[in-house]
Amino acid sequence: MTTVAAYAAPAAKAPLERTTIERREVREHDVLIDIKFAGICHSDIHQVQEGWGEAIFPMVPGHEIAGVVSEVGPGVTKFAVGDRVGVGCMVDSCRECENCKAGREQYCTGGNVMTYNGIGKDGEPTYGGYSEKVVVDENFVLGIPEGISLDEAAPLLCAGITTYSPLRRWNAGPGKKVAVVGLGGLGHMAVKLAHALGAEVTVLSQSLRKKDDGLKLGADHYYATSDPATFEELAGSFDLIVSTVSAPLDLGAYLGLLKTEGTLANVGAPEEPVSLNLFALLGGGKSLSGSMIGGIAETQEMLDFCAEHGIGAEIELIAASEVNEAYERVQASDVRYRFVIDTATI
Amino acid sequence: MTTVAAYAAPAAKAPLERTTIERREVREHDVLIDIKFAGICHSDIHQVQEGWGEAIFPMVPGHEIAGVVSEVGPGVTKFAVGDRVGVGCMVDSCRECENCKAGREQYCTGGNVMTYNGIGKDGEPTYGGYSEKVVVDENFVLGIPEGISLDEAAPLLCAGITTYSPLRRWNAGPGKKVAVVGLGGLGHMAVKLAHALGAEVTVLSQSLRKKDDGLKLGADHYYATSDPATFEELAGSFDLIVSTVSAPLDLGAYLGLLKTEGTLANVGAPEEPVSLNLFALLGGGKSLSGSMIGGIAETQEMLDFCAEHGIGAEIELIAASEVNEAYERVQASDVRYRFVIDTATI
Repeated sequence: MTTVAAYAAPAAKAPLERTTIERREVREHDVLIDIKFAGICHSDIHQVQEGWGEAIFPMVPGHEIAGVVSEVGPGVTKFAVGDRVGVGCMVDSCRECENCKAGREQYCTGGNVMTYNGIGKDGEPTYGGYSEKVVVDENFVLGIPEGISLDEAAPLLCAGITTYSPLRRWNAGPGKKVAVVGLGGLGHMAVKLAHALGAEVTVLSQSLRKKDDGLKLGADHYYATSDPATFEELAGSFDLIVSTVSAPLDLGAYLGLLKTEGTLANVGAPEEPVSLNLFALLGGGKSLSGSMIGGIAETQEMLDFCAEHGIGAEIELIAASEVNEAYERVQASDVRYRFVIDTATI
Repeated sequence: MTTVAAYAAPAAKAPLERTTIERREVREHDVLIDIKFAGICHSDIHQVQEGWGEAIFPMVPGHEIAGVVSEVGPGVTKFAVGDRVGVGCMVDSCRECENCKAGREQYCTGGNVMTYNGIGKDGEPTYGGYSEKVVVDENFVLGIPEGISLDEAAPLLCAGITTYSPLRRWNAGPGKKVAVVGLGGLGHMAVKLAHALGAEVTVLSQSLRKKDDGLKLGADHYYATSDPATFEELAGSFDLIVSTVSAPLDLGAYLGLLKTEGTLANVGAPEEPVSLNLFALLGGGKSLSGSMIGGIAETQEMLDFCAEHGIGAEIELIAASEVNEAYERVQASDVRYRFVIDTATI
């Protein structure tokens, strides 16, 4: 066991504070990673606040991890000391179910192990990226290609793959019109990725406040959803809409923006049920779908794609001591577009 | 103009009665069809009762039409006198929009012409199949192959294509597990077609009352949805669920029956909005979709498929004078599985 410094919430809804945690010894297939940067995802806040149900405390959040390999177990073949690597939302899965075998570990039916607020196969709680080091099985470690800086790479491990996966699944590319609902941490990645994939990209945001940013990120068009004219003008326009927001949407209105056989893919979701008239799906053969992060192989594909296209996240680098203030700002949507903790400051 | 006998509702919610209507002269590309059989679709009743909004009266329902060509216009190339033909839900469309050009006339954005309760391009109301003859543009007439009797073919023009289209779109076939919700006019066709396509078919019906029928129609399994154990036993089982019911479903419960990335396709829909927790879509990358009849080319493909596999509808043949009683029985779900009017009795 190795003792490392970390930032943890000691109890639900409590502010995060500096502490120490134990990391397991490096096993046969393990990689020890010196964490350099950890992104702050809105879901970190949900979990610290137990918004998604009972959680495990103390909690060290962080599932957008970028660092450098400092030790490998004797059975490790995929990584070597000095490699630039990342860890996302999962650190293990059953590896035997149909989904794991198909590379969809995020939907593991045997029960996957979340990077934090989870229980590992050894029965110990998992701790996330707001810390100095982490030990992870090599099969859940991603290589970060040269060409993406580690700080800008960190958010790709969740925000990047969460948006890349539905864009790929529903064929965002040349000749396709894609709308992105919400221009936050997820949304800004969706815009960059959809643009790099060759799609014509429209941002649908509450207001035009971030319009200049949106266009710089790669959007071709930018509309305010607070303006009812938007829904008239864009009726029947999109092959795919990726909704990154967790506020409840008027689903009928957004489905009306889809072309025939288009898909409204949700990667964010309100905690409360929403109301839907199914006729909005019938008249046009439309789909309302969900998508959750992505598999390990697809995450590597996304990182390679980002390196090839020079894509990283837009970040605001902070010291670990600023994490509680950053949480408040995330909740106020006051970040452009992702806070990343410089873990050297822990 | 030709005067023909028909059964019509003189006003909303009024019983149908024998009357006469005018059919247009046969134009350049028209086909005159001696109607032999007309299926009774639940949507006929919805429209007579103005359940789907204001309608045009007198109304001659019927969009499941089978008959024989008795005259063709000089420009007709697809059909000849004596051909066995059918007409479904549409008798025209704009033919110029993206959907028409793609063979998805059912989603015509220029405005298609419904077989009845519609307004033709000549500005005249359209009248459906509960009549002796109909004149239709050859591009909206289907050939009924030898090997399907005309009476059993009639319901294929709506119930057949409505279920065939989503089964094909979402790849029902060998190795796929397909559930059909509801064993009525649409559901019994979905079972026959999914079975013929090679899928493993499960019926999900309120009770086990029609279980013997369901298995004879081609289902491999039959479960009662009134039994909560059904939802536990079948969790995560299906690649595709086709819901043919218009009663509001507990969508979360049915989405729980899908495998990862599975689709719940609705061809029936409740008139009132339903409640949905979007997390039911996220955890498993699932889709809730809609589908409405099918295009003309796909309808012909379906008829050819049915002929090849010896598939017709299960019908109860009635005289035209029994139509009001039949409507009552349809509303009471007391039909196995489709009423078809012998139009010789009009």
